[in-house]
Amino acid sequence: MTDLPPLRLGIAGLGTVGAGLVSLLRENGAAIADRSGRSIEVAGVSARTPGKDRGVDLTGIPWFANACDLARSDSIDVFVELIGGDEGPALQSVEVALEAGKHVVTANKALLARHGVYLAGLAEKKGLALNFEAAIAGGIPIVKGLRESLLGNSISRVYGILNGTSNYILTRMQREGLPFAEVLAEAQALGYAEADPTFDVDGQDAGHKLALLSALAFGVRPDFGAIHLEGIRGITPDDFDAAEELGYRIKLLAVAIQTENGIEARVSPTMIPKTSALAGVDGPLNSVAVEGDYSGLIILAGPGAGSRATASSVASDIIDIARGHISPPFILPVAKLRQQTRPGMFSHEGGFYIRLSVFDRPGAIAAIATRMAEQQISLESVVQKRAPLDLPGISRAGQAGEPTPVVMITHRTREERLRSALAAIVEDGHVSGVPQTIRIEAL
Amino acid sequence: MTDLPPLRLGIAGLGTVGAGLVSLLRENGAAIADRSGRSIEVAGVSARTPGKDRGVDLTGIPWFANACDLARSDSIDVFVELIGGDEGPALQSVEVALEAGKHVVTANKALLARHGVYLAGLAEKKGLALNFEAAIAGGIPIVKGLRESLLGNSISRVYGILNGTSNYILTRMQREGLPFAEVLAEAQALGYAEADPTFDVDGQDAGHKLALLSALAFGVRPDFGAIHLEGIRGITPDDFDAAEELGYRIKLLAVAIQTENGIEARVSPTMIPKTSALAGVDGPLNSVAVEGDYSGLIILAGPGAGSRATASSVASDIIDIARGHISPPFILPVAKLRQQTRPGMFSHEGGFYIRLSVFDRPGAIAAIATRMAEQQISLESVVQKRAPLDLPGISRAGQAGEPTPVVMITHRTREERLRSALAAIVEDGHVSGVPQTIRIEAL
Repeated sequence: MTDLPPLRLGIAGLGTVGAGLVSLLRENGAAIADRSGRSIEVAGVSARTPGKDRGVDLTGIPWFANACDLARSDSIDVFVELIGGDEGPALQSVEVALEAGKHVVTANKALLARHGVYLAGLAEKKGLALNFEAAIAGGIPIVKGLRESLLGNSISRVYGILNGTSNYILTRMQREGLPFAEVLAEAQALGYAEADPTFDVDGQDAGHKLALLSALAFGVRPDFGAIHLEGIRGITPDDFDAAEELGYRIKLLAVAIQTENGIEARVSPTMIPKTSALAGVDGPLNSVAVEGDYSGLIILAGPGAGSRATASSVASDIIDIARGHISPPFILPVAKLRQQTRPGMFSHEGGFYIRLSVFDRPGAIAAIATRMAEQQISLESVVQKRAPLDLPGISRAGQAGEPTPVVMITHRTREERLRSALAAIVEDGHVSGVPQTIRIEAL
Repeated sequence: MTDLPPLRLGIAGLGTVGAGLVSLLRENGAAIADRSGRSIEVAGVSARTPGKDRGVDLTGIPWFANACDLARSDSIDVFVELIGGDEGPALQSVEVALEAGKHVVTANKALLARHGVYLAGLAEKKGLALNFEAAIAGGIPIVKGLRESLLGNSISRVYGILNGTSNYILTRMQREGLPFAEVLAEAQALGYAEADPTFDVDGQDAGHKLALLSALAFGVRPDFGAIHLEGIRGITPDDFDAAEELGYRIKLLAVAIQTENGIEARVSPTMIPKTSALAGVDGPLNSVAVEGDYSGLIILAGPGAGSRATASSVASDIIDIARGHISPPFILPVAKLRQQTRPGMFSHEGGFYIRLSVFDRPGAIAAIATRMAEQQISLESVVQKRAPLDLPGISRAGQAGEPTPVVMITHRTREERLRSALAAIVEDGHVSGVPQTIRIEAL
């Protein structure tokens, strides 16, 4: 132990993560003091409702009704923001803390994905920490991985399964053959999904995390607006059946990749090979993979959420500060962060899964193949399925004129070519409804 | 960029990792300087043979014939030891460097597993870094993971696949049904295994790494002698067949676990469930898993060796020093590291796979089951296989008196009980040869 005085924390927000952090510091505090050479104490807390039972004893810890008062209090060295939300008290209190010369630790991905550059600038001006290990993938140490461990690399791609709720739903759909709506309702009943699941199942949550990962991996300004988002609502049991047969899993994959046209960053349902490491990441687990020119492919996996796992990451950020190990939030000084270009998905290149309801008439498949060929799209496989007898609204394949499902896998192509081909196919009148397309990511 | 002067490296050992590091610094040096706020330069190199083609241009870099001269040279700030070996020039030059006040970065697991406490003591006295990310699992950032990211946790178990050569051999045996000797010879011909493969296939290499992992995870003195080692030479295609049928994979698993009797640390062929994340870690890949009381199970995977991946880890250690982020080598001050107790494998508790050649006579299986019951060992499954007609030396099962393979899986038991039961079974004369036993690790 050195003679350093205790590091004094102010914790704003006493939800599950805040309570988990207090519990962690109480249980493992003595060991942490031995390991980091400095003891850590909770010098103040703030939350909306005092007196509520949070499963931890807060007796004797000064209570601040206003998070900003805690953030600027002389009694703290580090402000731990666990309030949540990308505006309001979270933003204000972090601003106040940094202006007052306090280090900040936060688990707030939405706040940083929107205001990260501004807040990093405030931190930089005073040489303060703005640490956010817990903002991406819960207990998985990916921020430190990119900020420190892989810093000697030029990174070409970072990708991951970053939303546990969506991954839980997709895993259930795959295993049980159930439709999205049914699994979602079940997840809501069990408390695994919010009453308004938009944030999780439409990709925003993973998008916030990807904005931060992109910034760390590629030296760009975190920019939530630059992320292309597609959710999982449109995925059907038919897609899972086809994926199973073709050797793929469907995951809500977040991918940021350095292309000739800039950084392509997207969150979308994606077909990944069953043999890839991420294919086995099921249920609420998260996983992040990084491709460095020297490191090769490094994969991290673990719990993506939960009070305890998130508290573990918050604690590691605090311990870095206790040790005096401060790094710029996004690695580079803010002035050196590049503006993220948005190549747009039309320039995306890759393979595609396509599922069409084709009217089963002579020449339909040939016409579809011709439209693909016109766009120089070559097909890796075409599977024409017989519609099951009992599928509502679709009569048995083989009866001329009725639609039958056709699944195609394309070789690598440019997304705008595929969109043109599909538009022409729909225009030709050979298919019923809107074609389903899912990008394939080669892993 | 700050106004810090360049960090000057002395690199001793210019094998593949040393050359990889020079290449990394050349290719990514400008970006690293931006990211770490300080440029890094190679101020001196040392190797046995000057003038050899190493695939990198060393023109203009001062050459030191003697590593110790480089280690003490005023022209360097950091000594990078890539010589290898646990005595001789590696040990001497690291001692000299630390005595001379130079930070040390090394990839040398054998050196640290044997002399880690002594060298950490030297580093501690002068507040110097002794960093060794590259010593465990190549490009995987597990040292930083334990030293920093998971520091708020109490860790109950750390385990991994830490030797790529053994994992490559086991993967080939499993996939091709080939015997050990044949796959080893093939691996040697391809350069994947050394002419003398002892170090890899008998567990020493993984044992060195586990000694370091144990120290980091449990706050004990690294002690190679405290690791129980068993290699993979005794594993046969029959074991892979049985594992496949029973839902297991066989891996050379390194495990350190906190038990009531102390830290049990072992490297041995181990049956792990096919469904576990490590079961899919094939070929030369490495993977490390850590169970923390707050983090939950965190898994890291990536290339376990190779010049580039190892150089990536060495670079991260150097960058930490460039940023002034120095932590004690084994987290705790040397005086606080506990002596690792050796509970010994007799007190190990777990399930076991047992393969016996049982003489097919009335009452043999009953007698075996009785011996197990006497030791309170309950069996999860017993599979009696018919010997194939063409198996050399064993005639067809069913012919009284000839041995037939019997595979048993036990429930959790104490290893000394199993050893006693098996000794009695052999003594009873119902089995031919030595029983095969493989520990099962619940993952």
